Amino acid sequence: MTDPAWIAIAGGDTVSAAMSLLVVGSTAFDTIETPHGNAERCLGGSSTYFGLAARMFSPVRLVSVIGEDFPDEHKQLLSARGVCLDGLEVKAGKTFSWHGRYSADMNDRETIDVQLNTFGDFEPKVPAHYQDTPFVFLANGAPATQMSVVEQMAGPRFVVADTMDLWIDIAKDGLLTLLKQIDGIILNDSEVKQLTGESNLITAGKATLALGPKLVIVKKGEHGCVVFTNDFHYALPAYPTEDVVDPTGAGDSFAGGFMGYLAKCGDVTRATMQQAVAYGTVTASLNVEGFGVDRLAGADMATVEARLSELMDFVRGV
Amino acid sequence: MTDPAWIAIAGGDTVSAAMSLLVVGSTAFDTIETPHGNAERCLGGSSTYFGLAARMFSPVRLVSVIGEDFPDEHKQLLSARGVCLDGLEVKAGKTFSWHGRYSADMNDRETIDVQLNTFGDFEPKVPAHYQDTPFVFLANGAPATQMSVVEQMAGPRFVVADTMDLWIDIAKDGLLTLLKQIDGIILNDSEVKQLTGESNLITAGKATLALGPKLVIVKKGEHGCVVFTNDFHYALPAYPTEDVVDPTGAGDSFAGGFMGYLAKCGDVTRATMQQAVAYGTVTASLNVEGFGVDRLAGADMATVEARLSELMDFVRGV
Repeated sequence: MTDPAWIAIAGGDTVSAAMSLLVVGSTAFDTIETPHGNAERCLGGSSTYFGLAARMFSPVRLVSVIGEDFPDEHKQLLSARGVCLDGLEVKAGKTFSWHGRYSADMNDRETIDVQLNTFGDFEPKVPAHYQDTPFVFLANGAPATQMSVVEQMAGPRFVVADTMDLWIDIAKDGLLTLLKQIDGIILNDSEVKQLTGESNLITAGKATLALGPKLVIVKKGEHGCVVFTNDFHYALPAYPTEDVVDPTGAGDSFAGGFMGYLAKCGDVTRATMQQAVAYGTVTASLNVEGFGVDRLAGADMATVEARLSELMDFVRGV
Repeated sequence: MTDPAWIAIAGGDTVSAAMSLLVVGSTAFDTIETPHGNAERCLGGSSTYFGLAARMFSPVRLVSVIGEDFPDEHKQLLSARGVCLDGLEVKAGKTFSWHGRYSADMNDRETIDVQLNTFGDFEPKVPAHYQDTPFVFLANGAPATQMSVVEQMAGPRFVVADTMDLWIDIAKDGLLTLLKQIDGIILNDSEVKQLTGESNLITAGKATLALGPKLVIVKKGEHGCVVFTNDFHYALPAYPTEDVVDPTGAGDSFAGGFMGYLAKCGDVTRATMQQAVAYGTVTASLNVEGFGVDRLAGADMATVEARLSELMDFVRGV
């Protein structure tokens, strides 16, 4: 609690250390093609990447939906790593599946096939014993769906959402309403420009703050990220990854490291937020070095800490 | 002299404080169109941008060529600001002129017209009293021309070159030869990938080091830069500029701030190089806020120091 300006966001004195963290998002089968190889129907989805990243820092509660075809081994992988699946709804039908193909430099990807299946009419139900979770991440989804989660939560909380170009296109009003109800938003550089109509990233970041959230994080992939708040702006380069194998889930694992660290600290100050951004950065860099969730599932805090130290050397030039 | 590993580059004990700095490059008339307005036949050219940036830090010696149409007022602007013009050759004919137009987001530019004129067969002649200048910047030009400058220099020196995609395309052998004879190279991200055939920027930076130079600086525009040496790697975000009016000369003013600060210090250590990169960053950010050299010509060290402090706040998040 070194920075009083930020305490209000986390709910002040009612928030104490070692908090748990709720994620609401998709669970999926991903088929991924990159220049480095292919993976068929591997475990994917935003809640999965987020959960496997965040669980290294703090207990994670997951709200998502799957079909009857979802294998027990995937559930076991998650729960064995501290991801609580009490909020994982099983519905008649199939699990959401996605098939994507990355360009040669992996800066672009093409969606070959999407089957929304049971995720198509996802109505997240936050279990009663999850409703006071102090840290909440709303993974990419329709703003109205994200809002329904906010409305189910009780008590002070720190809520951060992800979004995408589709929702800015077709559900901007809903997104603007959501932005007034949550604490933070994570977007990429093209999304923040699209949302605000500003072509300069710094101007766009500031304009997003004016839409309501106290925290705006703009992800720039290999160029790192920029954090905007009303108190400070902060730029952090990316970890100098050379072996990008599969970029899938980079954004969700960034968010997982970021929110996981904040939940571990139990407070949101300038200092914890900056450290959290660094943890998000290294968690995402780990994730892209393996196919699907492989690298995240096998990682631990020792891996993360070693990489954080390398990132800090890169930023300090030592 | 806090970092012995770097002393050798600057010539060791023979280099002392408050050194002068030589730049060899073009002097031009620029006609510039940006979404913010136009400028007709204003003072331009790589040596001019570099000189007006570097002179804030250290005395600058300029080697370039102009035609008989070059007005005295431009010469006076330069010499009044500490740029020595003893190496500015006046040849029969006209001065190099360039006409460019920037895209709406200013990330691309189209060359409308180029008249090389007297710059077309530029054979730089380094005056005798310039030949022991300890810090040398070879602005963008044919590698053979850049090499001819290296051959005219005497004594220990720290030589850094710029280049562009054209020379990597049509004079790669000459560039590779040059890289073995100089200390540092400054390129942008697409150039470093083109030069090395590597699609990953970090891998490409390391591969460029293997071609000979002890220092590789990769400029990424609004995303900052990455410094590669055999001792350390260093990433610095860009200054958070919101008012980009004219990007012309950003690279040369970056190089001017970088080399100017090193010459001012008189040594090249890890610490002075990192500080120099920060000065290059803020000098470039100043430059792009005005048309042509306007902002650089009117700036002083107080302006630069204030901006450096803002950049450090952005990087530290305070």
